[in-house]
Order: sequence, then structure tokens, then C-alpha cells
Amino acid sequence: MANRRTITGFSNPTVKFLRSLREKKFRKQSGKFLAEGLRLLTDARAAGRLPEVLVMATARDSHPLLDALEADVLAAGGEVLEMGPDLLAKITGKDNPQAVAGVFAEFDTSLAALDRSAARIWLVAQALRDPGNLGTMLRTGDAVGAGGLILIDDCADPFSVEAVRASMGAVFTQGIALARWDEFLPWLRGGPGQLVAASLRDAVDYRTAPYAAPCFLMVGNESRGLPAEYELACDLRVTMPMKGRADSLNAAVAAAVLAYEALARLDG
Amino acid sequence: MANRRTITGFSNPTVKFLRSLREKKFRKQSGKFLAEGLRLLTDARAAGRLPEVLVMATARDSHPLLDALEADVLAAGGEVLEMGPDLLAKITGKDNPQAVAGVFAEFDTSLAALDRSAARIWLVAQALRDPGNLGTMLRTGDAVGAGGLILIDDCADPFSVEAVRASMGAVFTQGIALARWDEFLPWLRGGPGQLVAASLRDAVDYRTAPYAAPCFLMVGNESRGLPAEYELACDLRVTMPMKGRADSLNAAVAAAVLAYEALARLDG
Repeated sequence: MANRRTITGFSNPTVKFLRSLREKKFRKQSGKFLAEGLRLLTDARAAGRLPEVLVMATARDSHPLLDALEADVLAAGGEVLEMGPDLLAKITGKDNPQAVAGVFAEFDTSLAALDRSAARIWLVAQALRDPGNLGTMLRTGDAVGAGGLILIDDCADPFSVEAVRASMGAVFTQGIALARWDEFLPWLRGGPGQLVAASLRDAVDYRTAPYAAPCFLMVGNESRGLPAEYELACDLRVTMPMKGRADSLNAAVAAAVLAYEALARLDG
Repeated sequence: MANRRTITGFSNPTVKFLRSLREKKFRKQSGKFLAEGLRLLTDARAAGRLPEVLVMATARDSHPLLDALEADVLAAGGEVLEMGPDLLAKITGKDNPQAVAGVFAEFDTSLAALDRSAARIWLVAQALRDPGNLGTMLRTGDAVGAGGLILIDDCADPFSVEAVRASMGAVFTQGIALARWDEFLPWLRGGPGQLVAASLRDAVDYRTAPYAAPCFLMVGNESRGLPAEYELACDLRVTMPMKGRADSLNAAVAAAVLAYEALARLDG
């Protein structure tokens, strides 16, 4: 059966291709990304996203979720690749013979693909560099019922293995858009939307701020925060108490505290 | 001057020792840990913590904060080590000739060293495995004015380079205690203190829960959450809305959302 292959040999071009997806350059060239682990792949399937290629070990324990995934991938015209544990470890970077991985097509990441009326909360990150923070923001977005995450300027790649893993599956359920600031702002102003910055500048207490849906909550780069110009373009600048020595929170933490406050207030 | 030395040669025992501090085993053997970067060292100094050994490049740009740090370290009887950029890169793992690092003595991490009356909020983590999450919890603790972080069972090492970095200096200002559950619970019950679990089990909404100081906010392991037995021993189990597909938040995010809610309510 053409859709089911056993791969042998480290120099096999398929193995090389799968390994290359750990690097952003090759993800962008191919428009594909890698997600690892049965839980993540099952979350993707539940969200209606199937891998184009499913990768697993020739000798493995049977698992009903994996069997279901395999059947769905084959039924959808996808490919199932089996290989020995050594090759699999080369691709997943993990010495786990139960490991599975899937190759997915990257999604449409244009602003035009977002339907702002679909959710009351949206997360926005500017120049976010840490893929773990990015994935955590996607995960938080899922939890608060956000529509998605808009990545402004040069952010970490949401399709990196680290970001996908930290998202705990939310990469498959949250909308994701990549845009420059001077694309994002006109898009935002082209419809309803309140832009809120986590800020220290001329800011109001985040507990009493007048949130309004659809509410776009924006956090800045891990080291530099948001550029002053971006903050000033916001409808609202909110601040969280800082009782200690530090003057900022982790970016993903700031987004989450703000998102849960907005959720409670918009729901209330 | 004995307190000031120039180090040459990769096989120098001091270089070997400094490199070894990236591994937990050698940190525990020596009771020392490494903090990197001028900002972190300046935060430590502001918190009254000086490194026993300050490490920097022989050829470097002058910086008033670094000069002040150097003077303080020497005045306190500490040691200043200078070395070429290659050696420095070996120790810091960074190709940055401006890099500085400090060797600190680990602090007292016994429960007995904590003064529970010193703060209204305390964070507690059980079997937390990710050093980034751990450092982020310390950073959040600083921000909400918590007294410190209590690490239950087998957690990541708070003195690892990654945790120290993620704490953004809070490792020097927050109390840190390591304890087994069966040490922690009797200690907690030996004085005032409300133990609150982030939980899905028989839990009340975190926005309406009756927080009381001193309030100990506990989150569990990244994959498994808290053991049922631990949750049941809590005075309060609180839950946050989960509007999406996932059933949990990142552990550091859950702790922060909870801590900011408790802060607002205990302050209010």
C-alpha cells in the first residue's frame, strides 16, 4: 500500500526532511511543521487537524488512540511511515520507542484569516522571542476562549517544535496571525476592537480598567517591553501591581493575568 | 593582591569548578551556585547578596555598575577572577566578552528559615520539573509581594542557571524552602496559614473563593497536577475557567493568575 512505508537508513531523504523541520528555514521552505507525542496528535485530531505524514516505530505497543489516528490519516490520503527506534530517535530527539510525530501543513497566518467577531478576547505579542512563552500564550488563549494570537514584528516561530509543545495542542485550535505593526494597526482600526497594552506608562489599574470586546491584549518583548509608539496607539494602558524589586512580569504571565481579568470582567 | 587573580588555561581547576556549577551534583557538593549577567548580579547586590567570586573578562568595557560590584566584592573579602574571552565563554556558555558571572553560596532552604508572618501570600509548587517555570514563579512571587516559594517533593533545582535566570533576580529576594510533603504539612499546621490548591476537584471559582492570609497557593507537577491526597488536605480548592479544549494551564501561569487574584482580594 503506497500510503504506508517502512523507512530504513539514516541517509534516507525522508528522514533528512523530517529532521530538517526542527529548523525554521526548512519549515518555511516546505510550509510544514512537526508535532510530537500522541497527546498532541490526538488534540490535533480532535480539533479536525490531521497530519499529512504520521511517523512511528515499527515495533510499538498498540494504543487505541494511535490506531484511530493511523486509520484517519490513511483515510484522508495521508502517509504513515514506520521506522526502527534509532531512526525515530533521530527525528524526535527522544529515546522513546513509543514516540510518534506528525508532519502538518502550516496554517494561513494572514490577518485576513481572522474573524474578530468570533471571540471577545484576542492576544497580541510583539517581538516575543521565547518559543516557550509563545506556546504558553497559545495555551492560555485556549483557556480563556480567545480567538487567537497575533504576532507582531519579529517573534519566535509558532510552528517550532518548542512552541508547538508548550501550546499543549492550542496551536491547532487558536487562530495565529503574523504581521508587521504597520499592517496590524490599520487592520485593527478597520473594525471594532479595543487595543490594550500591558504597560507602566500612564496606565490604569488592570482591575478597574474598562475592557470592551473584542479586546486585543498586547504584551511586548521579554527584555524591552513594548515600543513607546505602540503603547501610545493603544486605547487603554493597564498595569498590574508590582510589590517587589522587579518592574515586570514574564511576558506569558502578564498576558495570562490580564486575559483572566478581562475574561471575568467581560463575562460579569 | 590575593583577592584578584587572572586565570589562564582551560584546565585550570578554578575554571573546572566554575563550569561544574552548571550541574546539580556539583552545586550540592559545593553548596555554591552561579548567576550570570550584570543585571542579575546588580539585583543581587541591591538585595544585599554579594557573590563570593566575581568572574569577568580581562579586556572589557568599563561600566559603573560593574565597578561598584567589584569594589563591594573585594571589600567583603570576596575574590575577583579575570580571564580571556575564550575561557569566560566556556564558563558562561555565551560568546559575549562583556559577560560577568558570580558564584554565590546557596541559602538556607529549610522551612524553619521562613517567617510566615512576613507576607500574606506564599507560593508552593509540588514536583515542578521545569526550571523556567520555577524561576518564573519566583519572579511572580516577587511581583505580588509573596514571602517565598516552597518546593514540595522532587522539584527542579532553584539554584540551576536556568531557574536563576528566569527568576530575574527574585532568587535573591524570595524565601526558598525545600521540603517533603510530610514535613511541609505539619509545619504549615503548626501556625496560621490557609492552604489553597489550584484544582479541578470539588473546587470553587477562584474569583469568589474566601482567601485568608497567610495564604499558601499550591500548584502541582506540569503533567500530573497535584496528588489527590494533597488536594484533599487543602483548606480550599479553587479552579479557573477553562473555556477551550485544554483542561489545565501552564503551572507558572496558574500560580500567577491565582496569586494576582489573592493579592487583589486580600488587599481589597
